[in-house]
Order: sequence, then structure tokens, then C-alpha cells
Amino acid sequence: MRWTVGVDFGGTYVKLGAVDDQGRVRQTLALESVGISRPRAFVAGVSREVDRLARSLGTKPARLRGIGIGAPGLVDAERGMVRMLVNVPGWRNVRLGAAMTARLGCPCRVENDANLYTLGEWHAGAGARARHLVGLTLGTGIGGGLILNGRLHAGAIGAAGEAGHMIVDPGGPRCGCGARGCLEAHIGTAGILRLGRAALRRGSPCLAARLRSGARLTPALLSQAARAGDAAARRAWEQFGRWLGIGLVNLIHLLNPERVVIGGGVANAWPLFAPAMRRTVAGLALRAPARAATIVRARLGDQAGIVGGAVLVWQTC
Amino acid sequence: MRWTVGVDFGGTYVKLGAVDDQGRVRQTLALESVGISRPRAFVAGVSREVDRLARSLGTKPARLRGIGIGAPGLVDAERGMVRMLVNVPGWRNVRLGAAMTARLGCPCRVENDANLYTLGEWHAGAGARARHLVGLTLGTGIGGGLILNGRLHAGAIGAAGEAGHMIVDPGGPRCGCGARGCLEAHIGTAGILRLGRAALRRGSPCLAARLRSGARLTPALLSQAARAGDAAARRAWEQFGRWLGIGLVNLIHLLNPERVVIGGGVANAWPLFAPAMRRTVAGLALRAPARAATIVRARLGDQAGIVGGAVLVWQTC
Repeated sequence: MRWTVGVDFGGTYVKLGAVDDQGRVRQTLALESVGISRPRAFVAGVSREVDRLARSLGTKPARLRGIGIGAPGLVDAERGMVRMLVNVPGWRNVRLGAAMTARLGCPCRVENDANLYTLGEWHAGAGARARHLVGLTLGTGIGGGLILNGRLHAGAIGAAGEAGHMIVDPGGPRCGCGARGCLEAHIGTAGILRLGRAALRRGSPCLAARLRSGARLTPALLSQAARAGDAAARRAWEQFGRWLGIGLVNLIHLLNPERVVIGGGVANAWPLFAPAMRRTVAGLALRAPARAATIVRARLGDQAGIVGGAVLVWQTC
Repeated sequence: MRWTVGVDFGGTYVKLGAVDDQGRVRQTLALESVGISRPRAFVAGVSREVDRLARSLGTKPARLRGIGIGAPGLVDAERGMVRMLVNVPGWRNVRLGAAMTARLGCPCRVENDANLYTLGEWHAGAGARARHLVGLTLGTGIGGGLILNGRLHAGAIGAAGEAGHMIVDPGGPRCGCGARGCLEAHIGTAGILRLGRAALRRGSPCLAARLRSGARLTPALLSQAARAGDAAARRAWEQFGRWLGIGLVNLIHLLNPERVVIGGGVANAWPLFAPAMRRTVAGLALRAPARAATIVRARLGDQAGIVGGAVLVWQTC
């Protein structure tokens, strides 16, 4: 049995995991201390931790099957190069794969993080290895990945799957990308807080009481209020579900997938938004492709990216 | 040299063409008289014409490389089966491929017509055999097809590429599919006429004069008025270009294609809408994937589907 290591990093964290040949994650490390703002320090810090992880499993880095890294930005997977990271300056055309291989002596592949989440769920999670699958992550932003014909579709320059920047309402709220009415502007964190504030304006005793006692308005708070029965907060999550459903209609019409897997932290509010999401798809999508698409919640939690990193290594090394 | 025959049919017409090994169309027939409302009569009539076409080229049907048929509806290409046609009742799960092969003795493949248009333009037209390409047709409805990794992506049940039913404006005009604010509701024929009527309301002396003298409001008339310098008609085409641009932003963000090919009868108004379309993409799309996507006008006119039928035969027989 040879181990594969998956690495998933975001703006403030790095997660590592050792994955066995069956796609099970056996050992994980979450690093808060590895700086990600400078690529050199990142390579040195992550290499050190991969070395430690390998040794704890009784092997060494050069004997790993490989390392698969998910990066939150634009990745040229063929070159193992991070073109740029969203919200982290200092990463411009960094040959991350080659740098890791030079240090550790095993193959290293790099992909966009939402693509690896999708690949992980497809292989070992809720994706059921469907032939055509869309993965969505709900969080601060809305990420996406596409598996078409059983393979990741990364597009011409690795930028495919940006479902969060589908425009669903051109006169709608401003998105971080500069456009108006992107799906992300409606259901990313900023969008959820906008729905929450609208709930407050419609009168939400439960939410108002929480805020008076010092709580900050967050998606989690809005979710707690809805679970506690607050009608306005429930309505906010229904609107969330409706916008998500409109995004799904578009994905279903364009791609005709067999499966859509929805994950990310905000997917914890699934019971609050899923009924409205499903009603919207049933009400607005063409019947045949809507019936062909099974929409499910992700299963691997924050390990999806790590598993996806391993799958990437298996598929390409 | 062996000939391949492409067949393209819509609600009221059937076009046939003989295609040589280089993808050039050498002989075409347009049939008004073949009834398409009954599948049996259709098979008999088209078979007769394929026979005539083959003989006029000094060969016979059984010696053709094959026949590729584009149908305006939902097609199960693996089974050569037309699941249903849009606007033509009487076609439910018709094994068109097998029926044609039984009559003519050569292989017969069936696909959705917008997919074959896309395949034709990709192979021999404006598509330049790009690795990832989106084809759009502008007409009564808005059709689409996807080439991903150099192959047609038809989706789980053959329904992929329905770009016309992306929802870009959920409170917008009602679409023929029942939803509101589909791309097609804005820029299909009904949408263009709506833009034209709005132009009239804003005051359009040229259009008003034409209508008083008995002309009917059509996309072609709106196009003539705009070319004649009518400011309101020009504005209507700019709005058309803006909506089309929003659709393109979504396609670019989701699929990151290298190329988008836009055809169909309404693409004749290209000079009137293309500047606004390009401005919209440049203004609203993420820079990297927008730069990667070359947006061009289709080149094969109404022969794209015939060429695509031949390409389908070459790829699958």
C-alpha cells in the first residue's frame, strides 16, 4: 500500500491528509502556522509537514504515490502552476508542483480547490462516480467544479466551474467581482447577511433579541434563528434556496448532469433551504434534464479537498 | 472517396447534403414536401431523397459512409432515438437511426440539431477545432451545443447545451418553457419583437412609417430600420447585445471555452449587436477566462448542420 497526500489550502489555513488506496483519509493535520502569503515559506512549511506526516506512517516523502494540492485561485494544472490566488497577493505564476517535487522527490499535482472538492466527492463521497457531475461549495464565496465524462473539466485556462459568477439578476446586488447579480452576490456570505438584514426589517423578534444581547449577524446566527422557528429568518433561507435553485436550473440546462453535490460550510443549513431549492428546480427547469439530475448534499465535509488531491494524483501520475 | 450524408430538419423543412471527406458540402437538397409530422412518412421520404442524392453522385445508399441526422428535440444518440421533438407531436421514442439503416443499408446516427450545428462549425467553420467550444444559434429560439475536450458534450440524457433556458432575470418576461427571464425570452424572436415594440413606444419614425405602410414587425424589419439609422431600433439591438453578452458571461464563467461561435438567422444582425455584446462581456466577465474566449460569427450558414451530421458519422462509425 502506498500513501498519497492531499493538501488543501485557503486564505488562512492549510490542511494535509494521508489517503490510502481506497480513498480513505487516515491522518490529517491542520496547520495554522504555515504562512501562505509567501510562496517560498509555504513550500518549505508544507514540505516539512508532508515529511512529518509520511514518517508518522512509517514511510518517507520520496515513497509517496504523490501529492495533490488544491489552491484557491487560478491554476494551470498541466504546468503545476498557480497563476494567481484570490485575495492572497504574492502568488503570480508560481511553479508549486515543481518546487514541491524538488524538495520531496515525489510527483506533485496542483488544481483549483473547488475542482478538488468536486473530484473528492465524486470519487469517495456523494458523487457516486456519476458520469457528469457538478460540485458546488457554499461559503463566503460560491465555488464550483465540473466532472464531465468522468473527468475534471477545467477549461481552456483552468477557470471553468465558476458557478458563483453566473449572472442571475443583472440589476441585482453588486458582487465582489464587480458585476451585479452574480449568484454569489445573492447567496455568498454577503448575500446571506443581506437576506438577514431584510428579515430584521420585516420584524424578527428572535433575531433582534440576539443582536441586542451582543451577537453579530452571521449565517450561523441566521440559521439558529430559523431553526428556533423565527419566521423571518426561515423566509430568508427560503429566498436563499430560491436563488440557489435558479443557479441549479442554469447548470442543469447547460450541462445536463446526472448529479449535483452541494457542500461547503453553509450547506449545514440544508434543511432550511433545500425544500425551496427543490421547488424552484421543479418549477422552472425543463422536465427531462431536471429529472435526470439528482441533487444531494456533500458527504466528505472538509476532507473532500484532501481526497480530491489524492484522486488527482491517481488520475495523472 | 466515400460520401457521407447530413440531414437537418426543423418544424417545416428538411435539408440534405452530401459531404466529402474534407467536410465540403457538394450537393444539397431542400425538401418542403416531406412531411415531418409522422415519423414513418418522414423515414420513407428522406430515404427516397438520400437514394436520389447518392445516385446523382454515382453511388448508392449502401455504399455511403453513413448518414447523420440532426433533429430539433431531445435525442438519445447512443440508441439513435428521437425522444421527442419540440413543437412536433407524434415523435415519441422513435428509433430513427435503426429505421433509416434498415431501409438504406448504411450506418445512421442521430443527434440534436444544435449539437450538429456546433459540431459542423467546430470542424469546418468558425470553430477552428478548438478544444473547448460553445455554439449558439440565434433564431425563433436560442439553441446551443458544447464541444469539450474535442468531443460533443450531450449530457446525461442528451439535453445539454440548452443555453437559451439559462435564467438571467427571474422577474423578466415569460418564456415559452414556462419560466421567466430565460435568455430566450429576451433574445429569441418574441424577445426581439418586445424590444422592437419598446423602440416604437420610445418613438421611432422610421419603424412607425414602415408599419403604417403595412409591414409586419419582424426581427428583419427591426434590423433594416437600425441599418437605416433609426436610433430607437439601434438601441433595441444594443439591448439584444447586452442580454446576449450576459448569457456569454455565464457560459464563459462555467465552461471557460476557447471559442464561442454564434450563428442562426438572427446572427445576420451581427454588426448591430456585436459591439454591445462585446462591451458587456468585457465589462462583466472575469478577466482571465474572458480573454481566453474568442467570440466569432458562424461561417457555414445553413450548411452547418449538414456538415455536423457528417462529422458525427466520422466520429462514431
